[in-house]
Amino acid sequence: VNAPTSERPTLRARVPWGTFVADEVRTLYEEYAATLDAADYGAWLDLFVDDATYIVTARENVERGLPLATIRCDSKGMLADRIDALVTTQFHARRLGRHFVTAIRPVASNEMALETTANFLLVETIDGEDSRVQSVGSYADVIVPTAAGLRFVAKCAIYDAALVPTSVVVPL
Amino acid sequence: VNAPTSERPTLRARVPWGTFVADEVRTLYEEYAATLDAADYGAWLDLFVDDATYIVTARENVERGLPLATIRCDSKGMLADRIDALVTTQFHARRLGRHFVTAIRPVASNEMALETTANFLLVETIDGEDSRVQSVGSYADVIVPTAAGLRFVAKCAIYDAALVPTSVVVPL
Amino acid sequence: VNAPTSERPTLRARVPWGTFVADEVRTLYEEYAATLDAADYGAWLDLFVDDATYIVTARENVERGLPLATIRCDSKGMLADRIDALVTTQFHARRLGRHFVTAIRPVASNEMALETTANFLLVETIDGEDSRVQSVGSYADVIVPTAAGLRFVAKCAIYDAALVPTSVVVPL
Repeated sequence: VNAPTSERPTLRARVPWGTFVADEVRTLYEEYAATLDAADYGAWLDLFVDDATYIVTARENVERGLPLATIRCDSKGMLADRIDALVTTQFHARRLGRHFVTAIRPVASNEMALETTANFLLVETIDGEDSRVQSVGSYADVIVPTAAGLRFVAKCAIYDAALVPTSVVVPL
Repeated sequence: VNAPTSERPTLRARVPWGTFVADEVRTLYEEYAATLDAADYGAWLDLFVDDATYIVTARENVERGLPLATIRCDSKGMLADRIDALVTTQFHARRLGRHFVTAIRPVASNEMALETTANFLLVETIDGEDSRVQSVGSYADVIVPTAAGLRFVAKCAIYDAALVPTSVVVPL
Repeated sequence: VNAPTSERPTLRARVPWGTFVADEVRTLYEEYAATLDAADYGAWLDLFVDDATYIVTARENVERGLPLATIRCDSKGMLADRIDALVTTQFHARRLGRHFVTAIRPVASNEMALETTANFLLVETIDGEDSRVQSVGSYADVIVPTAAGLRFVAKCAIYDAALVPTSVVVPL
């Protein structure tokens, strides 16, 4: 792959990755999807810093400026508790989730943090049923560098449907 | 990431990116999906050159060599008019679209232009309904370098379904 | 894009791409999806080495350690025969497939081979019907370098649904 020449301005110049490496950011999202879909919640939680916020909400709430959320966790500890509750009480039919994350874009960055957006699609397969679209929407995230690699300090999953899918018991 | 050694021929050598940078091309598609899904039509139009052609058609038409198209715009101006009409007349239930573009591949290139293909999935959420697959298909595009970055000079969105989805009022 | 500094450990350091180049691996998957969706089975078969194994199975079988498989081919020759049979006997309604492969991750690697996992979504469009999710699941693959580029020596497509979709006549 050729380096862009100075004569040919490129999209990249307009894109505020700053000191962040695009490929590492994409790897973070790949880890996110893969650990979540494998129900490897320990590894998934490791992708958040201790004081991370995690929110799942409807687009309508965001657009109206309403502070409503389907899930709201103000720390990694709260998120871990929520996952514990989920794993412990999951006596209903087994659900397999499969995330597809694309259009990962930098929105703003400085030395300490990178804001990104991305599209997500969650396809769910419930025991004995066909696979189907569970939800679709976008992420609005903040990523920070840590000694262990890139991590989420804020993650907001905004689903497009107005109604809360009854099956949003797993994180998006 | 390691550079390929001369002993090990690589796929990349077979791939005609030419003087185009793969990562910049992917960024162009990410911008395309993100601006369209955000209904940021001004930024979306900016991804086309002035004399760009934009076509939405069914695969069956392409395979039969028929010149039929659901949308056909021969310039960015025509495309802007179409978008204006869309925004102005959209009195029906609100639709949110979410694009997933993968398998972005170079087909041919020279110094002036790059031909690409890609797969697209559009998941749509209509007010009060579940999110569902609106359409799926492939892009056949031509990309050119400009002073402002990579831009589409031709975009053809080919949907796989034989029938025109009644909801193809937004661009693909 | 900036190179990571030595002070900032990165995710990449934890990821066992080894001597394999991430971008080449992604290109292999893009070729896989594009050739399969275009029904260009010759080019698709070329992505496998001669003694490649190709398996399609349900997640339930993998988790229970059952050796059951919907499709099992122990060589590229067997896979070619299967494709021949598929193309020859396809007298039913035409099916168009569209693959979306994301979350491509290295699991392990040495000089000779790379193990990867990825998520796949197959959206199918049958003549006269709407496009719909045909199957979703994950790949567990082994990739090797060859004189012709990266190739699959083992590919296992694991679909999440418990029941075999009646339409799994095409490869995943």
